[in-house]
Amino acid sequence: MFRDKIKVLDCTIRDGGLINNHNFDLDLVQKVYKAIASAGVDYMEVGYKNSSKLFSSKEYGLWKFCKDEQIKRVIDNVESNTKISVMVDIGRVDIDDVKPANESPVDMIRVACYVKDIDKAIKMVNHFAQKGYETTFNIMAISRDNGSELDEALEQIEKESKAIAVYIVDSFGALYQESTEDLVNRFKAALKTKEVGFHGHNHQQLAFGNTIEAIIHGANFLDGTIYGIGRAAGNCPLELLIGFLKNPKFDIRPVLDIIANEFIPLRKKIEWGYIIPYAISGMMNEHPRAAMALRQSDKKEQYRQFYEELLATDTE
Amino acid sequence: MFRDKIKVLDCTIRDGGLINNHNFDLDLVQKVYKAIASAGVDYMEVGYKNSSKLFSSKEYGLWKFCKDEQIKRVIDNVESNTKISVMVDIGRVDIDDVKPANESPVDMIRVACYVKDIDKAIKMVNHFAQKGYETTFNIMAISRDNGSELDEALEQIEKESKAIAVYIVDSFGALYQESTEDLVNRFKAALKTKEVGFHGHNHQQLAFGNTIEAIIHGANFLDGTIYGIGRAAGNCPLELLIGFLKNPKFDIRPVLDIIANEFIPLRKKIEWGYIIPYAISGMMNEHPRAAMALRQSDKKEQYRQFYEELLATDTE
Repeated sequence: MFRDKIKVLDCTIRDGGLINNHNFDLDLVQKVYKAIASAGVDYMEVGYKNSSKLFSSKEYGLWKFCKDEQIKRVIDNVESNTKISVMVDIGRVDIDDVKPANESPVDMIRVACYVKDIDKAIKMVNHFAQKGYETTFNIMAISRDNGSELDEALEQIEKESKAIAVYIVDSFGALYQESTEDLVNRFKAALKTKEVGFHGHNHQQLAFGNTIEAIIHGANFLDGTIYGIGRAAGNCPLELLIGFLKNPKFDIRPVLDIIANEFIPLRKKIEWGYIIPYAISGMMNEHPRAAMALRQSDKKEQYRQFYEELLATDTE
Repeated sequence: MFRDKIKVLDCTIRDGGLINNHNFDLDLVQKVYKAIASAGVDYMEVGYKNSSKLFSSKEYGLWKFCKDEQIKRVIDNVESNTKISVMVDIGRVDIDDVKPANESPVDMIRVACYVKDIDKAIKMVNHFAQKGYETTFNIMAISRDNGSELDEALEQIEKESKAIAVYIVDSFGALYQESTEDLVNRFKAALKTKEVGFHGHNHQQLAFGNTIEAIIHGANFLDGTIYGIGRAAGNCPLELLIGFLKNPKFDIRPVLDIIANEFIPLRKKIEWGYIIPYAISGMMNEHPRAAMALRQSDKKEQYRQFYEELLATDTE
């Protein structure tokens, strides 16, 4: 699958940071950046730009805040065409803290939001676009919030916003190929002047399959992470995505190296991937929150009980 | 996805046996059978029916031979509607050793074959059908052997054989959704009187996604294994397949229990699942043989070198 317009974004450090309170060593982040840059990946997302008034830097690592000077320490002296992205959440960023793009190492700001927050998100996107950043909407929990409000939100985004792309975010890992196809078609129909993006979660081992499905139906902004790292079951493995795309600009080798050297050892320390409670959450179209709590408890392998509990909640 | 004609076959012990020379304890096989029966799965495949003249019972476990008396020890005294299947390979079975179906605990015999062996396979299928068994063809390595010989083979199967189903077997884990769709459509077009089946391999985390794709396009015989166990990257996880199918006859709970109690501990002893050299084999449409050898060597995490070696072979 070769399509020039396709842009791949690596969110290893950003989504992986949700497992470890964004406590990646600077050294690892530098290694990831070098690997991503050599692999020819279009963007690397280094974390969230959260206000340090709202979150404690004792509790959270550097990549919860993504201060420009920290990002510079990652990218300085590396030859690279990879652009830098950060994510912001509604109500957690101090927008006045964000400098104009031409004074910052950041190229793109992605605004994560729910459908209900679309007005706030548009305001933010336009603010950052005004400051010179590329901007996107990343619409979360889309396997649940996809009624007529979604159509209205997309219409508003198309009319009122300066974003370059709008992502379908399968937060619960609940989409199958047919639901992915339907969503991409809806997004494409509403968003004539913007690209459609896809961010999968791997609860049911479908992050890569759904990403392919999204590509087939015209999504051009695609997220992946090295060795699939990410919250709960993780994301679409970047190495599989690059292998599929066949675009000569990508080189899988640096990604293979960093998996062997860094992510195999890291996986022994922190957990992500195909784990039954996450699969159950995905099947039931539930947030992985309860499954994540289970995995931190002494009931981590009590799958049947967990299943019954989710079923009971589901029918409430 | 509810479709009455869909039949799910669990091949946990058969495909899992390829990792451990078919050395599963009788106790585990009994537990799997009970779980599969309580889960309402249509078939359980317990192993291969190989000639004990060709393979040593010192080297291989019981499920390489699947003698009727061993199968009886698994299923006796268990209330169940699950039928029993065994697999045979061309040239490795002593067909005179197979009793008539009404004297055997086996209900179905699946003949694994390559396209080139189709004449031999038809002869075998018809022999076993004559003896009263349900029979299928499982056409291996389909991501490579899919030229015009495949169309001829399908035509012959349709005209000359008594099989009830013909499986697409993605031995190399190399199919994507589009190639799966194409194959199912070709099979459906050629096989007017038989069902189409799908057996995925999970090298690129696509076994489940491709199985869904096969279902969408009309495949009705579907393979899965508990917790995805199987050679190399393993197979489509049965628990995900049951979760997707939504057929009220299935109950996921006994599968969840046996994963927690047996397959989580087993996975610590034998290896299967998402492992980079298998992903590389899948991307390159190669047999996982070389990757399996690598995983047994002291170079097991040397991905780049492995990738370069496969690339070099590929361009020879």
